[in-house]
Amino acid sequence: MGCYQENNREYGKKGGDIMRSLDREDIENLAVGATILGTGGGGDPYLGKLTAIQALEEGYEINIVDVKEVPNDAFIVPSAGMGTPTVIVEKIPRGTEVINAFETLSEYLGRDVYATMPIEAGGLNSTFPLAVGAKRGIPIVDADGMGRAFPELQMTTFHVNGVPVTPMALADERDNTVLLKTCNNYWAEWIARDITVRFGGTAWITLYSMSGKELKKAAIPGTLGVAEKLGATIREAKENRESPIEVLLEITKGKGLFKGKIIDVERRTTGGFARGKANIEGIGEHKGQTLNVQFQNENLVAIKNNKVIASVPDLITLLDLETATPITTESIKYGQRCFVIGIPCSKKWRTKSALEVVGPKYFGYDIDYKPIEGVMEEIG
Amino acid sequence: MGCYQENNREYGKKGGDIMRSLDREDIENLAVGATILGTGGGGDPYLGKLTAIQALEEGYEINIVDVKEVPNDAFIVPSAGMGTPTVIVEKIPRGTEVINAFETLSEYLGRDVYATMPIEAGGLNSTFPLAVGAKRGIPIVDADGMGRAFPELQMTTFHVNGVPVTPMALADERDNTVLLKTCNNYWAEWIARDITVRFGGTAWITLYSMSGKELKKAAIPGTLGVAEKLGATIREAKENRESPIEVLLEITKGKGLFKGKIIDVERRTTGGFARGKANIEGIGEHKGQTLNVQFQNENLVAIKNNKVIASVPDLITLLDLETATPITTESIKYGQRCFVIGIPCSKKWRTKSALEVVGPKYFGYDIDYKPIEGVMEEIG
Repeated sequence: MGCYQENNREYGKKGGDIMRSLDREDIENLAVGATILGTGGGGDPYLGKLTAIQALEEGYEINIVDVKEVPNDAFIVPSAGMGTPTVIVEKIPRGTEVINAFETLSEYLGRDVYATMPIEAGGLNSTFPLAVGAKRGIPIVDADGMGRAFPELQMTTFHVNGVPVTPMALADERDNTVLLKTCNNYWAEWIARDITVRFGGTAWITLYSMSGKELKKAAIPGTLGVAEKLGATIREAKENRESPIEVLLEITKGKGLFKGKIIDVERRTTGGFARGKANIEGIGEHKGQTLNVQFQNENLVAIKNNKVIASVPDLITLLDLETATPITTESIKYGQRCFVIGIPCSKKWRTKSALEVVGPKYFGYDIDYKPIEGVMEEIG
Repeated sequence: MGCYQENNREYGKKGGDIMRSLDREDIENLAVGATILGTGGGGDPYLGKLTAIQALEEGYEINIVDVKEVPNDAFIVPSAGMGTPTVIVEKIPRGTEVINAFETLSEYLGRDVYATMPIEAGGLNSTFPLAVGAKRGIPIVDADGMGRAFPELQMTTFHVNGVPVTPMALADERDNTVLLKTCNNYWAEWIARDITVRFGGTAWITLYSMSGKELKKAAIPGTLGVAEKLGATIREAKENRESPIEVLLEITKGKGLFKGKIIDVERRTTGGFARGKANIEGIGEHKGQTLNVQFQNENLVAIKNNKVIASVPDLITLLDLETATPITTESIKYGQRCFVIGIPCSKKWRTKSALEVVGPKYFGYDIDYKPIEGVMEEIG
């Protein structure tokens, strides 16, 4: 079976290159849809859309370029936010931090940057690169390095394909900047994570600079287009007072896992991450059952009646039962009614070497990864 | 009265500039003498001398230049080690780390570097810049930014005179490097300290780059020359089987504070610092009395019979009772017999604004700083 990343959008010719522009509605759709792919993390869609929409209002243009259109010798510098989601919603970025990080790295590299792009999918991390691209007058590549969100820097298909995280720049709202070069990608995560803690919980980063050729090998293409489509589906369903869930599952090739009410949330901020778990009491067809979802910024595993029914790298996303609005880990609240869905990850994550980087064992769960499609068929 | 920093050495003309070269014995003297000025911190003299002597053995030349000889438009990049002294003695540097940091910053600055220099006095931090200068073919300025050692980056006369800590480079033994730019010098300390912890307790750094004009205003001149003289005094006394203490006190304008035996040491490594205290039971003329010395990498206060008799920024140094070898905070041991001396700090530390940076209140002691000369006269 296919996976959602194979989806594509229409591109038109722009300034010699094949690109498409985003308007305000596209951005709003993208922010909401990316939050579904963010699988509990990747940042809040409301904050995410703000800087991109502001860039539009200031007269900048947001142009998206397809991976296939990027020249092999082009140079791409991704951009993102890093840190504790529970902090980002209280310590709202100005929007200039990530541009500061981008300038720091570009200046150091001393090369013409063809485009920026997200490293992960998420309400914030799919949309922040839009403002960076707009303000720098460069396009944003419709791709990312996860096809979802993950909590650590080395958890990308870039890493799995040998692209180094560093040189990497980090910036905060006080104009503190750090340029980091490490001996490997795990050291980049180790040091950068601590800097985000010293910065107050969040940092704005540029990293994983790579050529167009590397991009084509290492990136997960089409994530922005899929996010837009998911967001548009939710918007249309809301306008028509219909449930978008069936269409969302169809686009993502996802499965419904559980319907229930949040009866307990445990959340702690340790080591620069938001960690915790949510217990969900079944309603409707799941009455009498419970689902336990555990997270480290992103949802890691879903345990139904003491059996793991979904785990990283597959996506586990909580949607509001009425509106299908995705619920990020930092906004899970007691009493919320939700629908939990599971989405198969990109096939790039299903190799042995990739699973060593993002499989359940890396996160401390002594279980073997089983693709969600199989588990769902098994448990019915 | 004068202070020890007014001491000067003989300089000869070398390659157009007025410089003097150090030989192996000079380096050994400098390392031991600098440890006295290191006031418990600044690193171990044995480790310190190794890289400098190795540079000599590899055929490099170590040239010292006086502050007065540095052209106003010359560009100086100091170099140092940073971190927990208790870790440095167990995790011995290769010697290339600090050169790596130096290269990182020089490359970023893109300017010709005229000289390097220490930022503080200490067994390690007075000698590491010697190897950097030797290997880069540049002289080392006979000066520093403390005239002693202090635990935090902003505790320099450079800072008090408006020289920014950043851009600053940090390196470790794995070739991890960080280039840091912060909004102020306290932020530099805050972020850099944490990076040293992530590096494993120590980092090798270059920082406080400045012009010759700034150097003349902001530096404490002559520290290296004084350190050499102190070390030479101890060496000669050892050869003649005499006590060097009287001469040491004469050179430093210091005072004997206490003679005793270490009966208790409490040491903990927290937040990247070695903190703790030592209790010393009096012997000879101090029989029946106790002295308590508290430290954060460096000795901060000396409390005799519950009365503070010396405090930062004045220097408190423990010397071995037999050999007058200085005892660093990480090498204080139960049963050691020692002589505790107090040395007046540079007059640059005795202004109101300087005392806000390095006075006892900054370290959490609710006492007013009293110059050691006065206190000693008061208590006799």
